[in-house]
Amino acid sequence: MLRSRWLVPGAALALGAGLGAALTRRRAGGDAAEGLLGRLPVVPVVAAAGPPALLGSAPVELTKYGLPGLAQLRSRESYVLCYDPRSRSALWVIEQLNRDTLSGASERAACDFQEDDSVHEYHRATNADYRGSGFDRGHLAAAANHKWSQKAMRDTFYLSNIAPQDPHLNQNAWNNLEKYSRSLARNNKNVYVCTGPLFLPRMEADGKMYVKYQVIGKNNVAVPTHFFKVLILEKESGEIELRSYVMPNSPVDDKIPLERFLVPIESIERASGLLFVPNILKRTSNLKAITAGSKR
Amino acid sequence: MLRSRWLVPGAALALGAGLGAALTRRRAGGDAAEGLLGRLPVVPVVAAAGPPALLGSAPVELTKYGLPGLAQLRSRESYVLCYDPRSRSALWVIEQLNRDTLSGASERAACDFQEDDSVHEYHRATNADYRGSGFDRGHLAAAANHKWSQKAMRDTFYLSNIAPQDPHLNQNAWNNLEKYSRSLARNNKNVYVCTGPLFLPRMEADGKMYVKYQVIGKNNVAVPTHFFKVLILEKESGEIELRSYVMPNSPVDDKIPLERFLVPIESIERASGLLFVPNILKRTSNLKAITAGSKR
Repeated sequence: MLRSRWLVPGAALALGAGLGAALTRRRAGGDAAEGLLGRLPVVPVVAAAGPPALLGSAPVELTKYGLPGLAQLRSRESYVLCYDPRSRSALWVIEQLNRDTLSGASERAACDFQEDDSVHEYHRATNADYRGSGFDRGHLAAAANHKWSQKAMRDTFYLSNIAPQDPHLNQNAWNNLEKYSRSLARNNKNVYVCTGPLFLPRMEADGKMYVKYQVIGKNNVAVPTHFFKVLILEKESGEIELRSYVMPNSPVDDKIPLERFLVPIESIERASGLLFVPNILKRTSNLKAITAGSKR
Repeated sequence: MLRSRWLVPGAALALGAGLGAALTRRRAGGDAAEGLLGRLPVVPVVAAAGPPALLGSAPVELTKYGLPGLAQLRSRESYVLCYDPRSRSALWVIEQLNRDTLSGASERAACDFQEDDSVHEYHRATNADYRGSGFDRGHLAAAANHKWSQKAMRDTFYLSNIAPQDPHLNQNAWNNLEKYSRSLARNNKNVYVCTGPLFLPRMEADGKMYVKYQVIGKNNVAVPTHFFKVLILEKESGEIELRSYVMPNSPVDDKIPLERFLVPIESIERASGLLFVPNILKRTSNLKAITAGSKR
């Protein structure tokens, strides 16, 4: 019943850097949970979406021993990333591309894939996890997007910005999508690129829907079933154009036009648990979404 | 290739309550991304765990169109919950039990399962998703733990506090674990209970490890493979005792003693992507962990 390899009996208690440690310290100082949550930037959004009466009603004591997990943001030279400690990879990574970030002399040869030691060791992917797995260490924020700075390029090699990717996909169709993103950046004011994994369900023989994905290595790094890439184009005219792509994590014939992988942004929003459009509409009403239906 | 039911072609762009909307507004006011991240309570933890040089180096512009997802905390009468918009359920829920919260006249009959409309409709479970699925709407924070307040009990019926649970498990072994938690609360100063889903990998015939789980309903609500429950006991003596359990989401013979489901907390921490022990050790060094090895 509890035979899963995950549940190793007899493992020792281990001390590590605790999520919420800072919160706990604040609470120890007597702050109310209400006050604590009030300082979280997520709260105004919650308030906007739900009845305010539901907020801040939990007793102070309740979180005395900490919150076991919160968003793990990483802000780096070339990207902002939200880490998913359960899958040992990112939920999403955002980059900004333009003519400046694409030009420069930085070299990939000077970069090595490296563990992200800002992530707790329990939840961190290692190079050993990928070795012999049959999967590439696929960049989410692409290295070649950041020739402007050797450090920015090097930051893309943290394994927190990497997911197990089919080698054929990584080196062909997905690479073409990355190149296309750069070509758009050369012809627009800015391109904001958000990339992440998807774990999509499909129907099996019993007529039920299942999500199934492989995990690799000692740390069980999740192999996404698909990847998404959302391109937010800032045109010189001020118009914002949205192009959102999904590719399966399997060999994809690179003769298939990239337009064929356009999907409605809503599909990505539903499947990923993320939201893009509401954020964009806070900045502009001049938004055009290019979808599979509107292609060519 | 893109035949997944998830990727419905031609779906219209929809406007909703945006995660990060408040952030975007602040950024529009000219705040630096560094300042923004500096206000997030996660940052001190990141700083403690990783090299400070990695923080706050992303350019301001990078997050101009928002962050597509952050931790979704809900603080309610009876619990604090972190929502997982991808699985349409909670990552974890914390409750505080003691003699006071267990006594009262609140009635389950006065409660109905309800959609949590503080969650974006794309990422929300509905009662219809459960109908005919063969799964119970299993409480994470248990209703019977909150007899002290009808509102506190009612809050446990939000579908954000619910996960699809095998009916036999829900009504037998898992129910016994909940009862046991309450009996401990009667004999200790406080019991903090953290409950959540697990999605554990297992080896298949090809020798590789896979995570596989069903999703139910139109909204693809994820059916966990297992559930965890972590009990943090505050004894009258001041000692803290930790008991952590995992049960598979399948029928479990309720004649099996609950001790058999004790697992090392590290197993739950690794599998869930959460951390408990570091937070507890911030409050006390008087911690005793009861594991499968230390039973009886």
